Amino acid sequence: MIGIALFGAGTIGRIHARNVAADPGCALRWVVDRDLGRAEALAAQHGGRATDDVARALVDDGVGAVIIGSSTSAHREHLMACIAAGRPTLCEKPVSDDLDDARRCIEAANKAGVRVAVGFNRRYDAHHRAVHLRIREGAIGKVEMLHLVSRTNPPAPAPASVQASGGMLREKGAHHYDLAAWMAGAEPVEVFAAGDCLVDPGYSAYGDVDTAVLTLRFDSGALASFSFSRRAAHGFEEMIEVFGSEGMLESRRQPALGVALWTKGSMNEVGLHGSWYERFSPTYEEELRQFLRLAAGESVEIATLSDGVRAQAVAEAAIVALRQRGMQRIAKIW
Amino acid sequence: MIGIALFGAGTIGRIHARNVAADPGCALRWVVDRDLGRAEALAAQHGGRATDDVARALVDDGVGAVIIGSSTSAHREHLMACIAAGRPTLCEKPVSDDLDDARRCIEAANKAGVRVAVGFNRRYDAHHRAVHLRIREGAIGKVEMLHLVSRTNPPAPAPASVQASGGMLREKGAHHYDLAAWMAGAEPVEVFAAGDCLVDPGYSAYGDVDTAVLTLRFDSGALASFSFSRRAAHGFEEMIEVFGSEGMLESRRQPALGVALWTKGSMNEVGLHGSWYERFSPTYEEELRQFLRLAAGESVEIATLSDGVRAQAVAEAAIVALRQRGMQRIAKIW
Amino acid sequence: MIGIALFGAGTIGRIHARNVAADPGCALRWVVDRDLGRAEALAAQHGGRATDDVARALVDDGVGAVIIGSSTSAHREHLMACIAAGRPTLCEKPVSDDLDDARRCIEAANKAGVRVAVGFNRRYDAHHRAVHLRIREGAIGKVEMLHLVSRTNPPAPAPASVQASGGMLREKGAHHYDLAAWMAGAEPVEVFAAGDCLVDPGYSAYGDVDTAVLTLRFDSGALASFSFSRRAAHGFEEMIEVFGSEGMLESRRQPALGVALWTKGSMNEVGLHGSWYERFSPTYEEELRQFLRLAAGESVEIATLSDGVRAQAVAEAAIVALRQRGMQRIAKIW
Amino acid sequence: MIGIALFGAGTIGRIHARNVAADPGCALRWVVDRDLGRAEALAAQHGGRATDDVARALVDDGVGAVIIGSSTSAHREHLMACIAAGRPTLCEKPVSDDLDDARRCIEAANKAGVRVAVGFNRRYDAHHRAVHLRIREGAIGKVEMLHLVSRTNPPAPAPASVQASGGMLREKGAHHYDLAAWMAGAEPVEVFAAGDCLVDPGYSAYGDVDTAVLTLRFDSGALASFSFSRRAAHGFEEMIEVFGSEGMLESRRQPALGVALWTKGSMNEVGLHGSWYERFSPTYEEELRQFLRLAAGESVEIATLSDGVRAQAVAEAAIVALRQRGMQRIAKIW
Repeated sequence: MIGIALFGAGTIGRIHARNVAADPGCALRWVVDRDLGRAEALAAQHGGRATDDVARALVDDGVGAVIIGSSTSAHREHLMACIAAGRPTLCEKPVSDDLDDARRCIEAANKAGVRVAVGFNRRYDAHHRAVHLRIREGAIGKVEMLHLVSRTNPPAPAPASVQASGGMLREKGAHHYDLAAWMAGAEPVEVFAAGDCLVDPGYSAYGDVDTAVLTLRFDSGALASFSFSRRAAHGFEEMIEVFGSEGMLESRRQPALGVALWTKGSMNEVGLHGSWYERFSPTYEEELRQFLRLAAGESVEIATLSDGVRAQAVAEAAIVALRQRGMQRIAKIW
Repeated sequence: MIGIALFGAGTIGRIHARNVAADPGCALRWVVDRDLGRAEALAAQHGGRATDDVARALVDDGVGAVIIGSSTSAHREHLMACIAAGRPTLCEKPVSDDLDDARRCIEAANKAGVRVAVGFNRRYDAHHRAVHLRIREGAIGKVEMLHLVSRTNPPAPAPASVQASGGMLREKGAHHYDLAAWMAGAEPVEVFAAGDCLVDPGYSAYGDVDTAVLTLRFDSGALASFSFSRRAAHGFEEMIEVFGSEGMLESRRQPALGVALWTKGSMNEVGLHGSWYERFSPTYEEELRQFLRLAAGESVEIATLSDGVRAQAVAEAAIVALRQRGMQRIAKIW
Repeated sequence: MIGIALFGAGTIGRIHARNVAADPGCALRWVVDRDLGRAEALAAQHGGRATDDVARALVDDGVGAVIIGSSTSAHREHLMACIAAGRPTLCEKPVSDDLDDARRCIEAANKAGVRVAVGFNRRYDAHHRAVHLRIREGAIGKVEMLHLVSRTNPPAPAPASVQASGGMLREKGAHHYDLAAWMAGAEPVEVFAAGDCLVDPGYSAYGDVDTAVLTLRFDSGALASFSFSRRAAHGFEEMIEVFGSEGMLESRRQPALGVALWTKGSMNEVGLHGSWYERFSPTYEEELRQFLRLAAGESVEIATLSDGVRAQAVAEAAIVALRQRGMQRIAKIW
Repeated sequence: MIGIALFGAGTIGRIHARNVAADPGCALRWVVDRDLGRAEALAAQHGGRATDDVARALVDDGVGAVIIGSSTSAHREHLMACIAAGRPTLCEKPVSDDLDDARRCIEAANKAGVRVAVGFNRRYDAHHRAVHLRIREGAIGKVEMLHLVSRTNPPAPAPASVQASGGMLREKGAHHYDLAAWMAGAEPVEVFAAGDCLVDPGYSAYGDVDTAVLTLRFDSGALASFSFSRRAAHGFEEMIEVFGSEGMLESRRQPALGVALWTKGSMNEVGLHGSWYERFSPTYEEELRQFLRLAAGESVEIATLSDGVRAQAVAEAAIVALRQRGMQRIAKIW
């Protein structure tokens, strides 16, 4: 039974708190938030004690692992404290707004021998994972092309929110650059991006786009394309295709139900899930299970700190490519 | 190049005439119809000479094979004439309204050594055939259960038309009893039927039903169920499922197009074909190709005269079962 | 917060115990089992006290509702005790081995004004429920034909087990007769059954079959067919099709994953779930939620005691039909 | 009945010859080829007279329309001759190897008032066309993103063949740039391409790639991505997705058959067609029908000479973008 300190009692913190409480292998020991009232409310619901002081939780010997779900700007500081305290940590992405800082986190974790996982929850989606495993088993030979679609159900986030999130190519992008690298089994080397504000011209005031197509080249020669939009009227749309020398694998759009209505000239199925949470809530439970195994010293396949920094490096290069309208090399700092 | 005499210049005759004209392996030599004008019109369009005299066509040495598409009441007489003339014949089903007469046709053909095929065109549907072949290859082990659906797009036939057609359990049924036996690789031994007039009470005046569920048992122990309706608002619906000891095969409902529209909460595909002819016209071309090979003396898999009589025997027993509300044994006269 | 007394600590009891513990609207207060050790083990895991005495639990004012998951032979006695104690009850099916006894349970519950639900969990499957709702909304007009498939992944139950379960047409059948009536919105009036032992001849020693096709007629005129097998090599197979005057609805076979592999000449998807529990475990959670609302006095759509007895009456008539090889009228005792 | 002069008796010429012979609205009047023997053989099979002299066919008053299926290098000269002779013409793409020459063809046709269609046969695919029509009807609102996949079944063309074909971004690409513009209802303005030789390094000797990802921007703001490969082990793969402000439309990969095999843990369908011709032969028949209507003076939706030149202009810019590794503006010369 592993005691968990949870940093952050916001949206993602609440998801983790509920899963920690439900998992028989761990228990919530601390909820830490700058807003102490928010921490107390979450602890009251799912167990553990509340504090606004990270250090207080980290000195507790009963804390076997930490989950960082605080605001992005606090990630680096919180992660460095966990590393210093020698606690296995699951950190939400991005690791840091600054790539150099992110790289320093890798170095610190390596030096201290602390195990750090990054919250790429989509890797634990059963469908995506089955595709990954089949690729590794050789079902499609050598991976040559990938196509990843992520288009999100309304409402689109308010344009002003991109200041905090870092914009679509970072926030949404990082998950998918990671999935692509994980599927390709290769390292990204250069990236191109084209985009525009077709959903809401308001994004342009913040230098962001809401519609984008990207091209990513891997060191294996494989080429990935990405289709991103901030608004899919038809629901939460996510899909991955991986084409190889001997066939193709798809992690398909998931229908919300397996019901079909046939009428004149038409066959109508229930379409996409209405939200990200409907589609992906099980991935957080599986992510927690894998992280507990990591914290227990087992050898597990999980997104590492290096995976997290790699996806950030792709995002930064993509933003440069978008502006410079040309392929951009990705510095390998992870 | 085989010369064809076509008996009957009605709907089915016109389909055969066009296919004969288009097939490089044969040519239309005679069109025979009691209505000479109708025969002449069809010959003018697709070649050959017109007559209202079956005998005149059969004495022509240039006639290498005959296709009988005349009215049901004329089938027996026409087929007997073809057998007497020693011509390979493709006869539309049913062979005869009378089972004893039908059995005598088998005996005559066997005695004369004349090759007779029966027009079960669905056997030449590429989808159904692929299922049949995979069963024979052992893909699902031993066949144990079958389910066949045939529900037809509007308009339903006029109730009075069942006097000529023999009713739904004969007309529609025969095709599907044949498909079931062909898929099962077994002989039918008993049958049950339940039905009603849910589409049009007018059928009851003619002793017919427009909606029916049947159960057919084969000598292998396999059980088949059938769902028939005279009216499917959603189009021409036909489907076969075959369940075996090691898996299941489906010949699925065929969508008219492979187009999908995703909108909020829904994924909409193009549905069924709007008519029997849209769905099955290619089967007549393939049937002709197989029949030409039969006529040329090759060994081909084609529906034989015995297959035709077998399906009729099932139909007659099903009609008794419907009235007597119990399982009915099928006399093996084929 | 409703206190629950759970009767029976076997397989189905354990499912209910876990769901009661996880549901925020109720708590496990008593686990009752003739085998006290088994009751204690389950209470230790999910809460509440253990006893081997039904009466002790029923006198507890803290018990707001009862779930009966005891052995079939105890159902009637346990249910009568719950009715006498005035406790809202969810009773696993069948209500009783004896139809007259079952009918007396309905009378007792009605007289006492006690709310009794029957455990037809499939009604709470999201896919089946969506089909039901669309029918009620008029999506396919008037229901005319239904087809229900239930074929179960290996291993098949041991032949000797049918003595306790009552055989396939009762055990498996009751769920599907209920689904058919619920979909049709009509009352069953007569039934036919044909079956055989194709999976294991050992069933015949107990008068049972392992493969069966049934026909059920409703008072609306609608006709349902059923395909049952004790062994589906391809997994846990369940499917419902409902054909109406204006179209058709399907609750499709559920693939375990949405992954496709394309290789030469083939597109391969992940197939069926490997077991009943993988497919249907969420239905027990939803059933509990609906039952808690019923117990709280809300008006909910749930399978009632009459629904349970109706399905039993169909099963008994089907067994007679199987032997007598003819349509069998169903006495309306519910 | 329109008399057709066919220029070119090679692969594509033979397809056109057969379709002309089979279409009741036209007849083959001339087959023209530099190789007179080849022309004679084709005329013998499908009708008409043979010559190696284009002019001889064009002076024949019985020629109502011309189909140019000669080698690419002869297109411009043949098309100019047809325009000079005032004959409605269907010209295979590309119009000319040289964009300036191609533009001059447009000018000449416009000046002479001669109707010229270009052989983008995929526009007549029933599935693609249905998507196009639904977009025009407003089914998905404003088009924002497109994704087109074209990956071709083995064997890949010999590397040396790209000298004649112009390479993958021209030969394969032009069809898909045209489809994208047709679907988007907009004009292409800039393009990016990334590619490599992953299938066969031999292509690099000719400056070509066999695997490529492209991004195309339209004047409407819409962004298209393209995935091209010279070798798809799983068959002839073609697919189009169009994402709009109100939903998404797909012209899906077409399975060769509608057959499904369920075995343990798996559902197996028949996959893609084995070749381009299996998939697209019907499009040539429909293209001919539309062209005959154009030649008869009707107003039809058909790919025009300008459409042909537009696709070539995209291809040329894509090749520059591939080399320069950046977005490339497309000069609007059509």
